[in-house]
Amino acid sequence: MRTSIATVSLSGTLTEKLTAAARAGFDGVEIFENDLLASPLGPAEIRARCADLGLTVDLYQPLRDMEAVPGELFAANLRRARHKFELMRALGADTVLVCSSVDPAAVDDDTLAAAQLAELADLAQDFGIRVAYEALAWGRHVNTYDHAWRIVEAADHPALGTCLDSFHILSRGSEPEDLEGIEDIPGEKIFFLQLADAPLPAMDVLQWSRHHRCFPGQGGFDVAGLVRHVLRAGYTGPLSLEVFNDVFRQAEAGPTAVDARRSLLALQEEAGLAAPPPPVVPTGVAFAELVTPDAEPLAGLLGALGFTRAARHRGKPVDLWEQGEARILVNTGAAAGRDGARLAAVGLTSPDPAGAARRAEALLAPVLPRRRAPGDVPLDAVAAPDGTELFFCGPPPADWRADFDDTEHPPASPLVCGIDHLALTQPWHHFDEAALFHRTVLGLRAEDSVDVADPYGLRRSRAVSNTDGTVRIALSVAAAPTDGTVHAQHIALATDDVVTAARRFRDAGGRLLPVPANYYDDLAARHELPDGELETYRELGILYDRDAHGVLLHCYTLTVGRVFFELLQRDGGHRGYGARNAPVRLAAQHAVQMSAGG
Amino acid sequence: MRTSIATVSLSGTLTEKLTAAARAGFDGVEIFENDLLASPLGPAEIRARCADLGLTVDLYQPLRDMEAVPGELFAANLRRARHKFELMRALGADTVLVCSSVDPAAVDDDTLAAAQLAELADLAQDFGIRVAYEALAWGRHVNTYDHAWRIVEAADHPALGTCLDSFHILSRGSEPEDLEGIEDIPGEKIFFLQLADAPLPAMDVLQWSRHHRCFPGQGGFDVAGLVRHVLRAGYTGPLSLEVFNDVFRQAEAGPTAVDARRSLLALQEEAGLAAPPPPVVPTGVAFAELVTPDAEPLAGLLGALGFTRAARHRGKPVDLWEQGEARILVNTGAAAGRDGARLAAVGLTSPDPAGAARRAEALLAPVLPRRRAPGDVPLDAVAAPDGTELFFCGPPPADWRADFDDTEHPPASPLVCGIDHLALTQPWHHFDEAALFHRTVLGLRAEDSVDVADPYGLRRSRAVSNTDGTVRIALSVAAAPTDGTVHAQHIALATDDVVTAARRFRDAGGRLLPVPANYYDDLAARHELPDGELETYRELGILYDRDAHGVLLHCYTLTVGRVFFELLQRDGGHRGYGARNAPVRLAAQHAVQMSAGG
Repeated sequence: MRTSIATVSLSGTLTEKLTAAARAGFDGVEIFENDLLASPLGPAEIRARCADLGLTVDLYQPLRDMEAVPGELFAANLRRARHKFELMRALGADTVLVCSSVDPAAVDDDTLAAAQLAELADLAQDFGIRVAYEALAWGRHVNTYDHAWRIVEAADHPALGTCLDSFHILSRGSEPEDLEGIEDIPGEKIFFLQLADAPLPAMDVLQWSRHHRCFPGQGGFDVAGLVRHVLRAGYTGPLSLEVFNDVFRQAEAGPTAVDARRSLLALQEEAGLAAPPPPVVPTGVAFAELVTPDAEPLAGLLGALGFTRAARHRGKPVDLWEQGEARILVNTGAAAGRDGARLAAVGLTSPDPAGAARRAEALLAPVLPRRRAPGDVPLDAVAAPDGTELFFCGPPPADWRADFDDTEHPPASPLVCGIDHLALTQPWHHFDEAALFHRTVLGLRAEDSVDVADPYGLRRSRAVSNTDGTVRIALSVAAAPTDGTVHAQHIALATDDVVTAARRFRDAGGRLLPVPANYYDDLAARHELPDGELETYRELGILYDRDAHGVLLHCYTLTVGRVFFELLQRDGGHRGYGARNAPVRLAAQHAVQMSAGG
Repeated sequence: MRTSIATVSLSGTLTEKLTAAARAGFDGVEIFENDLLASPLGPAEIRARCADLGLTVDLYQPLRDMEAVPGELFAANLRRARHKFELMRALGADTVLVCSSVDPAAVDDDTLAAAQLAELADLAQDFGIRVAYEALAWGRHVNTYDHAWRIVEAADHPALGTCLDSFHILSRGSEPEDLEGIEDIPGEKIFFLQLADAPLPAMDVLQWSRHHRCFPGQGGFDVAGLVRHVLRAGYTGPLSLEVFNDVFRQAEAGPTAVDARRSLLALQEEAGLAAPPPPVVPTGVAFAELVTPDAEPLAGLLGALGFTRAARHRGKPVDLWEQGEARILVNTGAAAGRDGARLAAVGLTSPDPAGAARRAEALLAPVLPRRRAPGDVPLDAVAAPDGTELFFCGPPPADWRADFDDTEHPPASPLVCGIDHLALTQPWHHFDEAALFHRTVLGLRAEDSVDVADPYGLRRSRAVSNTDGTVRIALSVAAAPTDGTVHAQHIALATDDVVTAARRFRDAGGRLLPVPANYYDDLAARHELPDGELETYRELGILYDRDAHGVLLHCYTLTVGRVFFELLQRDGGHRGYGARNAPVRLAAQHAVQMSAGG
């Protein structure tokens, strides 16, 4: 029997995955859509590469949430499907996977589902493609193999069959006799069979308890609510942390103990047991400070981005670059580390710097010396868990600015209006600690964690921000450590016109991160954009996302040392950080790095 | 309010944990029993250390499965409790935690539970100790806080109260109003409050699907059974693997793809789709080969263990050491690596070496050259996923022995009769692959995974063996990688008299791994041993375990390079590998390493 493997099962770029599958003797592959989007190879090139390797392309799975939806939505789905069928023709894939819908708009109507799937199959047939419909274990209305098959049977279309997936079937804990119905499906209507195993029990309460506890405020329990009940009962004993956690068992005990006690301090505050100095929420980013052994590459980058060198520190080799409300310090006088330029410090505008520092100190943040050198303006500063120095700066005219002498500089025509957010990669063991720190020490609110697929492993990302979005920090971490590869930090610059800002950067000799053509083909399938827009984005490597509030447009510079910049335009109050586009961006950065590395 | 932390929440030795807790400003600690057992400090010394650090000992939790059990069992439990109360007096801990029973022998009888807990509290009171009874979320009969409280209330004993644990309460998904009953418990009867948070949802089917799938044969699903149904339906398409797995996303694609295809080959065989050469199960360990830059330390160790240098390889600097059926090759001619001596190869006695090699090759094991040097006897060999070379050797008189010339050696008086098992630490990314390899390629059966607590992180361990136990390999891996610390491999030597073997080793100048006194105090609490036995074990550092079949006695040599030896006596068909004692052994090894390292 022929064997095949989905590219998502393997690590690396699409090319690396295909090579590994072929060498191990697989006959074919399922191409996972994100792997294709992130690849610099076009569909026809991927087909050729597969052919060279002796691999067939057995399946492509770009379609989700197709069926049992209102007519207007289904029309848009068909439009998207047509784009993907064209791509599949180039890719040489003749079977498309359609998983049962999880769309809240989907209705529980098998007749409608069958009719729409038949219509989809009609379209597919024109392209010589077969549609394999599969029940996701968590499908909204269809979540068992026999339900999916009943719909396929009712649709009665030659280009429509079912796909069986061992995970989705067996994860529901089916009894052996529940599986016998499989034998009643005509074999030629089983278009595909996907296999995976999984550990049992995946996660019972015992496993949860022994491996995944965390400190109060780092999980999802209302621990403070519980404590309030216990206090009302009259309990006077200690608050004691008992946390079984695989990560804490490995992490250095000192920082973990500090993290632990910070969580209890915040809990006591929340439960009304203690009143540390209240949080002083920062109102803006005063500056970001980069430390580098060599100012030239950064100076070139900042200049091309439209920054001007506005001032120089009186006593130290530190330049201040300004554009709009974005201020970047470039420091060549501190230890840069062997990876070159890095983001070493952040100035946060605070309505009460001394109060912010008192809060931080009460919550065990390491306080840094107020005056870094004789003659410097004294500034309150603490260290974040990842070592980034956080300075609490007074509102404009900012205190720290007094250390700098203005230099003559050409008048700026700012396209960048400020720093939208900072993206800080966290050391592996301290991700939960970092989120708790930013939430409790700085009074920022933490958003939900999201998973982001890097070609060489998953990453988790979690943003913290103030209410009006003038301070945003995106924390991220690898799913598991590997070889100590250092991921870059970045500074996202806010602009009202990312197209003009990107053009100006490029015209000034700056290099933008190239984005694969496949990404724009997919964008065209997902959204109907006004004439010319897609071409502009493609030309400049601008990525696109949309949420309920508005649109996000963003592009990236190449990396210098461990730092790169993003130009970012939020329209209509878009709230995200481009997580949807991160896999493509990460793959593109790997590609640049690999081509630079030879 | 006072704050406290359980030592299990932090990494390292007990001393390191206490120091970290004190530095972070905690007022007290809960001592986790395993941390005490593994510590070289006695209870009074731990008390003094805590006092020096300004910490109180707020809780100790050595008692499990106490209540609602038949009278005879309860009498044994009280005996154990008395030992622990004596220890607690020395430790200065005045509250003991008793979790609701998970013992299958426990009965659903609240009156009995209350009566036995009152009797336990009576005993505790004599020692000035209070008993805090807590409902485990997975307790056999008692698993809610209000149930535990009802029992405490019924027992009505001044030294008995309840312990509330946020994890056990909130992990049950209680509604807010379910918690209001806490306020009805008199505060002075809430003896303790343990706090932990946890991510929500800890593991739903979506998370399970996206992060924890694995290749067929590596999990708990009957994937082959499903495939048989699909084949009976007449399906003729490919078998395709679609595996979302955080580890595979990071691991090198080449080996993962081979692992993947091996799983499909084994699945096809199981489903009757393919008939590769059948497995040839090895019947014994012919030899273990150590590679070392310097033979002297190993020669000293082997000599003291009672091995004699029996033969030397004709063409290479390889010595054969023999004792009973245990044969160790010491090779100074191959690359040893910077960590010194390592276990490089294993000879497996096979009823059909060529057949075993054909099986291995069909299942994609890298085949090694049959002849390693001109003139060598040709031997079939393959590489295991961790790089260990596996030689398939004919039954005695073994083929490979012909390469060796006997040397004159004193007649041995063997106390070691053979190799009981080999313990191989696996590279982090390839643990599931290793178990699948040994199961499918060698035809060994895999036992369940067990967690083992190392002071610096959890480890997972899984044994593979043949049916009669003449080939046993214990595979182990860290829960997550950290700094690339290399864990040692070891060779467990079977003996019928571990006491005499250990004495002989020590008398010959060998150094046994010292085991903390706390371990033996606990052993005395757990088991009533015949007069003198405990003292003998304590003197020699012999560890003890018991299962339904019999008793295991074992002790360890110090480590040379990356290798150490175990002397092991299985009585009455004991089936384990000493996992219960592994935390103590691992802590003792760390202690030796640290004192050696300065």
